[in-house]
Amino acid sequence: MASNKIAVPKGTRDFSPAEMAKRNYIFDTIKTVFRKYGYQEIQTPSMENLETLTGKYGDEGDKLIFKILDSGEYFEKTNFYKAFMKLIRSLEAAMYYEDLAYPTNSSFDQTFKEMNEDFKRNPIEYIKNAVGEDLKRASLENNKSFLRTSEISEKALRYDLTVPFARYVVSHQNEITFPFKRFQVQPVWRADRPQKGRYREFYQCDADVVGSDSLLNEAEFILIYDEALSNFGLKDFTIKINNRKILSGIAEIIGKPELIVDMTVAIDKLDKIGMEGVNKELLERGFTEDDLLKLTPVILLEGNNETKLTALKEVLQTSEIGLKGIEELNAVFTYLKNCTIKTAKLELDITLARGLNYYTGAIFEVKTNEVAMGSIGGGGRYDDLTGMFDPKQKLTGAGISFGADRIYDVLEELKLFPEDATQGTQVLICCFDKEFENYGFRLVNQLRQQEIRAELYPPGAKIKKQLDYANNKKIPFTIVIGSEEMQSGLLAFKNMQTGEQQKLSVDLILADLLA
Amino acid sequence: MASNKIAVPKGTRDFSPAEMAKRNYIFDTIKTVFRKYGYQEIQTPSMENLETLTGKYGDEGDKLIFKILDSGEYFEKTNFYKAFMKLIRSLEAAMYYEDLAYPTNSSFDQTFKEMNEDFKRNPIEYIKNAVGEDLKRASLENNKSFLRTSEISEKALRYDLTVPFARYVVSHQNEITFPFKRFQVQPVWRADRPQKGRYREFYQCDADVVGSDSLLNEAEFILIYDEALSNFGLKDFTIKINNRKILSGIAEIIGKPELIVDMTVAIDKLDKIGMEGVNKELLERGFTEDDLLKLTPVILLEGNNETKLTALKEVLQTSEIGLKGIEELNAVFTYLKNCTIKTAKLELDITLARGLNYYTGAIFEVKTNEVAMGSIGGGGRYDDLTGMFDPKQKLTGAGISFGADRIYDVLEELKLFPEDATQGTQVLICCFDKEFENYGFRLVNQLRQQEIRAELYPPGAKIKKQLDYANNKKIPFTIVIGSEEMQSGLLAFKNMQTGEQQKLSVDLILADLLA
Repeated sequence: MASNKIAVPKGTRDFSPAEMAKRNYIFDTIKTVFRKYGYQEIQTPSMENLETLTGKYGDEGDKLIFKILDSGEYFEKTNFYKAFMKLIRSLEAAMYYEDLAYPTNSSFDQTFKEMNEDFKRNPIEYIKNAVGEDLKRASLENNKSFLRTSEISEKALRYDLTVPFARYVVSHQNEITFPFKRFQVQPVWRADRPQKGRYREFYQCDADVVGSDSLLNEAEFILIYDEALSNFGLKDFTIKINNRKILSGIAEIIGKPELIVDMTVAIDKLDKIGMEGVNKELLERGFTEDDLLKLTPVILLEGNNETKLTALKEVLQTSEIGLKGIEELNAVFTYLKNCTIKTAKLELDITLARGLNYYTGAIFEVKTNEVAMGSIGGGGRYDDLTGMFDPKQKLTGAGISFGADRIYDVLEELKLFPEDATQGTQVLICCFDKEFENYGFRLVNQLRQQEIRAELYPPGAKIKKQLDYANNKKIPFTIVIGSEEMQSGLLAFKNMQTGEQQKLSVDLILADLLA
Repeated sequence: MASNKIAVPKGTRDFSPAEMAKRNYIFDTIKTVFRKYGYQEIQTPSMENLETLTGKYGDEGDKLIFKILDSGEYFEKTNFYKAFMKLIRSLEAAMYYEDLAYPTNSSFDQTFKEMNEDFKRNPIEYIKNAVGEDLKRASLENNKSFLRTSEISEKALRYDLTVPFARYVVSHQNEITFPFKRFQVQPVWRADRPQKGRYREFYQCDADVVGSDSLLNEAEFILIYDEALSNFGLKDFTIKINNRKILSGIAEIIGKPELIVDMTVAIDKLDKIGMEGVNKELLERGFTEDDLLKLTPVILLEGNNETKLTALKEVLQTSEIGLKGIEELNAVFTYLKNCTIKTAKLELDITLARGLNYYTGAIFEVKTNEVAMGSIGGGGRYDDLTGMFDPKQKLTGAGISFGADRIYDVLEELKLFPEDATQGTQVLICCFDKEFENYGFRLVNQLRQQEIRAELYPPGAKIKKQLDYANNKKIPFTIVIGSEEMQSGLLAFKNMQTGEQQKLSVDLILADLLA
């Protein structure tokens, strides 16, 4: 039974009603907060032109983009196919007069005859010409690039929401009012090797603002994280913040600004490999023992954010860019003094790098402290979002992302999904016999007129089966109708969780359900 | 600027914030009604295994399925590539001793030498062997099917929601409680030629029940259409209903059951080509003048549904299947007498066929009478949904679909989108000067604490620019803060639609916004 026909592709998932209800709860909660902060939803197509996507994610990323095969005669239009056909025709001609059974096209007879004579004159030379430079290259030197994927695929599935957003901003720049605050919740696709928690189709949940360099945006992102995650009922989570300019400053005062990437890659691993491991890696990556003496105290900075900032200010006093980073962080912290953070711990973490080459200012990462789990959110500021599509227009931006799949696992583990998140049927009407079905149908419609989500089980089945249906679908109430109930007008109204049953009039049942 | 890099692929669309708000309004309205009738949401992956989809939509449909190129070395694993490589190696060997500059692999030297000797002995025979049967076929007879798409693509984008649903039901049959009422609102993709109103990516919006043959389901589908479309504010629309069994009965009494498809294809065109055109087509399709005498009065049946049913009963009295169709329709009408239809006109239309080969019982179609537009919904009953995946298990089902894109156009034309459907920012705070930003930031957070969707324009810009932002984003209220306002505590609160402005305390502004 578990044939390929009924299996989903590797790394993709079906979502059952129960799972969808929980996923909707997560997305709705996050979207509501995004909207509250002035972010507006957009959607972009699942497919983008291949040239929109390639070259944006590095060589490794390009390989993970799902390409869509062109429709129609995609193979026939490739250079490979054309060269191949030329070769085959030449070989046919070589064989022509020797094997009349071999299929050919009579209109080519004269040409074929001439080609056949050429072949007989000098078979080796003939084959060399027939194979052609292109196919020679295809055969040994370079066979992978000969059939270019771009010849048979002009579209691909989006790999993230950021590049399509940048494309959107450039192509709609004349309709957009800046600063443009948009959110986007759509699936993305990656041809990654599937593993636990890593899928080939998954939703991203992004909010970005472009066209505003105000640090108020950074402060609001922290509030958005705090509000959304608090709304989920999370009680202990940390929003880590750093600034790329501080990292640049540190590399600068050590006198190795060119090693900033090596430095951050190494110190980003502090959690995993400890200070000793970090030092070992820094030495391997070109830092000296002398450098380590300067770096170690910075990496191991302790205390609250204010203490850390004061210490950093001292360390970075000769670095203009480093001081700019401190000033930016300070501004964000100052804004936040004007409002209430509900739950989040805000922690300056100078080891936080997160896609360093991308971010130019603030860097964020969110972790729950209640469950062992990777980051459930991240983001930062990038100075030039749209340059990849329009070099003239440098639009600064900042954005954050929620990891919906991980948040799902966290809420599941902490049992934080609310009971009423299922948006399911509130009451099931069961008939003892088919003769009551019109009564039941009137009743179910009466309930729906009061905006109650109600179902009538198609009459005719055994009551047990009907109640099982209610239990399986987690419907909290049932109404059972038999002849006695119809005559008295008092219906058997049962709470499926407590098992409590009462005989009530329709009006009282309605009042109960609407309470 | 309008390069391919920033254009969306042909037939796909970006959705702006304003469009998304309207689309969300449509989907939310429909989903709410689906849920009220006990339908639960599921989602299936965007991709299915190619073998799940092929053969389900006819040959034309198969061509319109978007295939996804396998990742990695997709070309190298094809039979075509392997045969081609064998040919190229043979030709290399033929040339080997003649051109040492030609690249080769030294470990093959001995083999190459032997092959070269073979070639010299009989060049024609050598080439014949090298080309091989496979490539010979590829060259002339059958070149299109030689590189099989299934060799380079094992996945494809879903073409509709019905086949994935059937696949879902079979693969999850042990977890599902039947009758299973599911709805699904997801995009589908078709490599169709794009034209006005026809897209390559568009959302379908389906509700289906499987595992129940009760005609209550049909009655409820009519109520769902009525309720959802009434909720949109549509005032005049018709739900057409027919039954496949009646069509079978008609073909039967004419004595041409085998021509049922021809008959329905012809009479389905009555609206477009009139009775004369229909008759002409019927004659072409194998009916006689005698048949037309029987058919015409049936096709032209007038009067209300009851009259039509009575007349049909007379006509179909000798057809068992025809009478069964009437009985089914009658049962649906009887159920509906037990409830209130809000707006819909319900019309028995025996010319309605709609994918006849698919449906086995009821057939639905919905049209608005307020705007010229094709059908905005359709559906019906099918006796065997899951047979395509599991022949043992015949699950009967029935379903309907809403045409969201067309409904969008209808609501737009009739100006029926509610003002508050935008879920946008309710109030924008503008500061005269950057020095007021902390005051503004405190205020915006105070408003948000009351669940008001509020924004603070990043201070520093001219007031005009800030108000333009509010106007462009259709934000209904603004609060302007200057030094006078901060001192007096009375802020300039402006209704952007009426232009009316008041100086109010924060408390009064809050009261106003929450009212």
